[in-house]
Amino acid sequence: MRADVILTPTDCWRGGMSGSIAALFQRLTQGVYVIGVGRGEVRNAFTAAWVMQVSYDPLLLVLSINPQHSSYALLKEGRVFSVNVLKKGQLDLAAHYGRADPKKLASTEWTTERFGPPLLREALAWFGCRVVSEHPAGDHMLELGKVFDGKLLDSEAEPMSYRETGAMDGAVALFPDVLGDP
Amino acid sequence: MRADVILTPTDCWRGGMSGSIAALFQRLTQGVYVIGVGRGEVRNAFTAAWVMQVSYDPLLLVLSINPQHSSYALLKEGRVFSVNVLKKGQLDLAAHYGRADPKKLASTEWTTERFGPPLLREALAWFGCRVVSEHPAGDHMLELGKVFDGKLLDSEAEPMSYRETGAMDGAVALFPDVLGDP
Repeated sequence: MRADVILTPTDCWRGGMSGSIAALFQRLTQGVYVIGVGRGEVRNAFTAAWVMQVSYDPLLLVLSINPQHSSYALLKEGRVFSVNVLKKGQLDLAAHYGRADPKKLASTEWTTERFGPPLLREALAWFGCRVVSEHPAGDHMLELGKVFDGKLLDSEAEPMSYRETGAMDGAVALFPDVLGDP
Repeated sequence: MRADVILTPTDCWRGGMSGSIAALFQRLTQGVYVIGVGRGEVRNAFTAAWVMQVSYDPLLLVLSINPQHSSYALLKEGRVFSVNVLKKGQLDLAAHYGRADPKKLASTEWTTERFGPPLLREALAWFGCRVVSEHPAGDHMLELGKVFDGKLLDSEAEPMSYRETGAMDGAVALFPDVLGDP
């Protein structure tokens, strides 16, 4: 079925609009990552899709993180984070690190090499980033990270697409019923 | 072939490292978009991959733009931008809007509806965004855009992946030979 739906505040589609707005945003393409944070021996990791490159010189990634998230304080303290790229099919890992369970690091394999935050042994690749600046962005915070380390663990695997995770993270419920005024 | 390559400054892989670092960054997943900008009757559009959602409330997208780009001045003046989602297979459109040709808008179909910047009739979907803040990010600028309009034009089409564009944009040459110090 083809859709040709305008999603402006002037439309009268209030009922069911949330699904329509979510469907629109699902057309933005993202990967799926496990973000590692840590300060000394205290470490955590969580699943995230809002990661991308934003600069070549220096090489910078941006991570958009919910400051209500329990890992945010650790990121602020440690000022470093890892970005572990999940492979297509690793939905179990995406779900595992998407949970609030404080013991989630205990049941999967990870290392830290010369770096503090957890690096997943099963990941496709990882990046090591130092936070260089932070900017508020609505209900999230943008963390700009300078990439100073990285490793490609499996050059044959395909990265996971956020679309592949379907409704796993319950994000559809987070979209408003209608778009706001400009 | 499987790779297991550490890309730190301590490695001695200076020759050919650029390709390796580019290969690592290619594991980050992005879409491909045509960004429209405009102020009054002056309009432009360009191909970009560095776009993502960063907030639910309000709904915000971030665009990372090279301030040397000719469209940057128009974006600063108009303070609005459109994000046109390209479909899988629309490599001709990606290449067309990737050129510096000042007449590129004349040869494809677009509209503006109630909005100023160009909206591509052939796109999968588009978003209308108003710039709410701007932050420097290395050699780029982050433009935070509040989404106040949007349209899903083709719900059956798959979005284009940046990986699909291969070496079209010449980005491999923009990666450094080695990663810098933290």
